[in-house]
Amino acid sequence: MIGIVAVLKVQDGKGAEFEGVFRELSAKVRANEKGNLLYQLTKSRADANTYKVLELYKDQEALTAHGQTDYFRELGRKMGPCMAGRPEVEYLDAVD
Amino acid sequence: MIGIVAVLKVQDGKGAEFEGVFRELSAKVRANEKGNLLYQLTKSRADANTYKVLELYKDQEALTAHGQTDYFRELGRKMGPCMAGRPEVEYLDAVD
Repeated sequence: MIGIVAVLKVQDGKGAEFEGVFRELSAKVRANEKGNLLYQLTKSRADANTYKVLELYKDQEALTAHGQTDYFRELGRKMGPCMAGRPEVEYLDAVD
Repeated sequence: MIGIVAVLKVQDGKGAEFEGVFRELSAKVRANEKGNLLYQLTKSRADANTYKVLELYKDQEALTAHGQTDYFRELGRKMGPCMAGRPEVEYLDAVD
């Protein structure tokens, strides 16, 4: 199993719009990706413009498939105007 | 729902011992805490001595109860000699 913590920073005042697009994305992921086990958006308590996505995938194949879906690419582009910089994605190997 | 990413750094050569104690802890959490929805140990790909625990709790009550259990305190002490510094715990509010 592979874990991801993706850090997404949004511009001031763009949080609600970003959350709306992310909601579309998480609905698609949950509906279409059997190999995705968790796709949870969270908001930092320390910084209201910082979001972290907690993700778990069954294996590398599932993770690769996730990044190649049309909806991931399309909704990623749709989030673009809300973002303050590029996402920071950390890859983690699940233990047991 | 509340998310946590806890960063735990271990001393060189202490990873296997740490993972063993953590396994005892995660088994207890999963067996006893209905309000805990995720308690997943992961290991950083960028630094083999850095672990991250991805956690989700139903609500604040569940999170508070987690920290007050005897096994959390006891197994936390048991991990102590493996650790390189104190845990860094980040609190996150789940979005939808």
